[in-house]
Amino acid sequence: MDERLLSKLQNLRRASAILSSANSSLKNEAILLIAKALDENRATILEANERDVSLARARGLKESLVDRLLLNEKRLDEMIEMCHLVSELKDPVGEVVDSFVREDGLKIFRVRVPIGVVAIIYESRPNVTVDATVLALKSGNAILLRGGSDAIQSNIAIVKSIKEALEKSKLPENCVEFVEDTDRANVDFILKQREYIDLVIPRGGKQLIDYVVRNSVVPVLETGAGVCHIFVDESADLERSIEVIDNAKTQRPGTCNAVETVLVHKNIADRFLPMLKERLDAKQVEIRGCELTRKFIECVPATDEDWATEYLDLILSVKVVSGIDEAIEHIGKYSTKHSDAILTESYSNAMKFVSAVDSAVVYVNASTRFTDGGQFGMGAEMGISTQKLHARGPVGLKELTTTKFVVLGEYHTRR
Amino acid sequence: MDERLLSKLQNLRRASAILSSANSSLKNEAILLIAKALDENRATILEANERDVSLARARGLKESLVDRLLLNEKRLDEMIEMCHLVSELKDPVGEVVDSFVREDGLKIFRVRVPIGVVAIIYESRPNVTVDATVLALKSGNAILLRGGSDAIQSNIAIVKSIKEALEKSKLPENCVEFVEDTDRANVDFILKQREYIDLVIPRGGKQLIDYVVRNSVVPVLETGAGVCHIFVDESADLERSIEVIDNAKTQRPGTCNAVETVLVHKNIADRFLPMLKERLDAKQVEIRGCELTRKFIECVPATDEDWATEYLDLILSVKVVSGIDEAIEHIGKYSTKHSDAILTESYSNAMKFVSAVDSAVVYVNASTRFTDGGQFGMGAEMGISTQKLHARGPVGLKELTTTKFVVLGEYHTRR
Repeated sequence: MDERLLSKLQNLRRASAILSSANSSLKNEAILLIAKALDENRATILEANERDVSLARARGLKESLVDRLLLNEKRLDEMIEMCHLVSELKDPVGEVVDSFVREDGLKIFRVRVPIGVVAIIYESRPNVTVDATVLALKSGNAILLRGGSDAIQSNIAIVKSIKEALEKSKLPENCVEFVEDTDRANVDFILKQREYIDLVIPRGGKQLIDYVVRNSVVPVLETGAGVCHIFVDESADLERSIEVIDNAKTQRPGTCNAVETVLVHKNIADRFLPMLKERLDAKQVEIRGCELTRKFIECVPATDEDWATEYLDLILSVKVVSGIDEAIEHIGKYSTKHSDAILTESYSNAMKFVSAVDSAVVYVNASTRFTDGGQFGMGAEMGISTQKLHARGPVGLKELTTTKFVVLGEYHTRR
Repeated sequence: MDERLLSKLQNLRRASAILSSANSSLKNEAILLIAKALDENRATILEANERDVSLARARGLKESLVDRLLLNEKRLDEMIEMCHLVSELKDPVGEVVDSFVREDGLKIFRVRVPIGVVAIIYESRPNVTVDATVLALKSGNAILLRGGSDAIQSNIAIVKSIKEALEKSKLPENCVEFVEDTDRANVDFILKQREYIDLVIPRGGKQLIDYVVRNSVVPVLETGAGVCHIFVDESADLERSIEVIDNAKTQRPGTCNAVETVLVHKNIADRFLPMLKERLDAKQVEIRGCELTRKFIECVPATDEDWATEYLDLILSVKVVSGIDEAIEHIGKYSTKHSDAILTESYSNAMKFVSAVDSAVVYVNASTRFTDGGQFGMGAEMGISTQKLHARGPVGLKELTTTKFVVLGEYHTRR
């Protein structure tokens, strides 16, 4: 196993040297060929996905997680559309980010360049295979794909299309490599290959991410789990707040940007909580409330563990707070620094929340569901970074580059 | 020990919350008070430094390293001048780096914010104590200083001035903390404090940096050792090339941006090497040459180990190469990805070198000695990053920040 994987890594390093200086037109051509291959192989991909899905259901995977795995014509359309979108985005490579000409005439340029070889270790979503490949190619990076066992048949079918497309393109076929063996041992192997891999991105549940962060000697871009909060301030428009919470919880509950905890200002709890319960009951959402919450509505009692849990399911924890300070404190304690929102009509509270909440994305009067590279105009994303170094929030093309200083002189010496 | 250090870390975390939203004027005032305190305490600082220096000489530290440790009136002037320079630089915090307004009117801003609490672990240079403090404060970060035992007396005297200044300022006094105990155990302790420290920067020799990279669970900004190269192409202006190499080797040999290996195109070796030897002999530089080099000039034979060595001393390794491709290959193998230069009159070779050499700073016709935050117009630097993530090259104010997405809506929901 290790030897086959090692030879894939060597291929990637060689391909990366060519890919890093490839023109945008060559990269875009390859991306559009991938879109075409996916379109031509729809039947095979959907058939492979059906096998993954029925196996997952047979194993008793919960429906919100089966939803992550599921492909259909519409989702294939979206994957193909994403390829077109990314092909139209501006290529970040070569951009001069900053420049400085010294008094002695020495010219200093900071130029955007690809990172090199990126590895992504992900779980069930087969669309990640396409998103990661296309974003990596466009940003000039070779990529190692290591998907989860749940989606293995879907991924094999998708990678076959990608490889077909690369063969027809003018990019090296080896700039994308897929790890077919889903044994955990190859994750350990990948995390040690500092020589061949410049960056590893774990994308999936908390357990996977923690494992990678703790065990990798390759630099990691941590895409975190999302325990996302919405704080409903006393001045919020309550009717519209219900719409936002409904959207944030139920539009796609299995995603990391879905809300998990709603904090309600005590002065509106009596009016707001019954409205919230009515809506969530209609949507089959289970509410787990704090002691105060349970004085206003009937619901499951919340434990301390609930505040720290990413349900990824139709469950919402609800806590009544004394005001914005307690809300900020609760978020500081339990948030995974992914996406947190305030709903308010108070300018001062909006500003205070935005400044005090130390998360990748902080919202005023909007659903947390917008935290997504596609929604943020980046075409697609490699994941949502919850770390502070290098990239924070959705990871798109720019975040897959680094910079290099290029200094042009006329035999300049330092005094 | 650990308890005292832990309470310092708790202080830093609290101070960071206040410092992160401090106005530029408060931060600049504090920085100018530090400059004033350093000026007023010159005698005490120089006297403390003398004790460090004589102890270092008594222990037989080589002179190029004693030079790193040494303070004098001129270097104190430079430290004070640096404070003034940094106080005049634009504050990066709050800058909107990017913005995107969606078709549905949702406004997305990417805003620059401080990282939080930064720890720097450094060795002998006492000016780092001031540089790191001032850059951290200006960028809104609290800082833990952990200097080396060589400079302990100097650092204690400098930190006393800094603390005096902070007491007079409106910033929390605890936004700077110094570790007085130079026991190695406190480094291990620091590297585990993911809860209190957001970033650790090792600055010093390869051994220290490797240790921190391998052992830290706190995110690391790797400031690398510099095995820097200059390739003299056949079309280079030979007289001026001698000036550049002399500057890069002898202007301050104990620094990481000094050149360690010169690669010479075979077609000019017969003319160039004797010129080089004459100049370097006059400057007491020992040459270690490859077999071909030794056909043209008398020198010490270079071993394979020489190509990978950062001498930090008046020693230069020299290799004759068949052309630009061999030069790029040698650099790819031995460079620490810090700073590498080509001296050439060939446009194509200059472009090829810039694109193919994967280092933080790539030079055409200039001395590698310019790789420095001050020389690059950043005022000062926390070190030179040789990693690809987050920051590459000199680490200044911008590199000590991260970004946060701020999203402003009107109860927007996702479709």
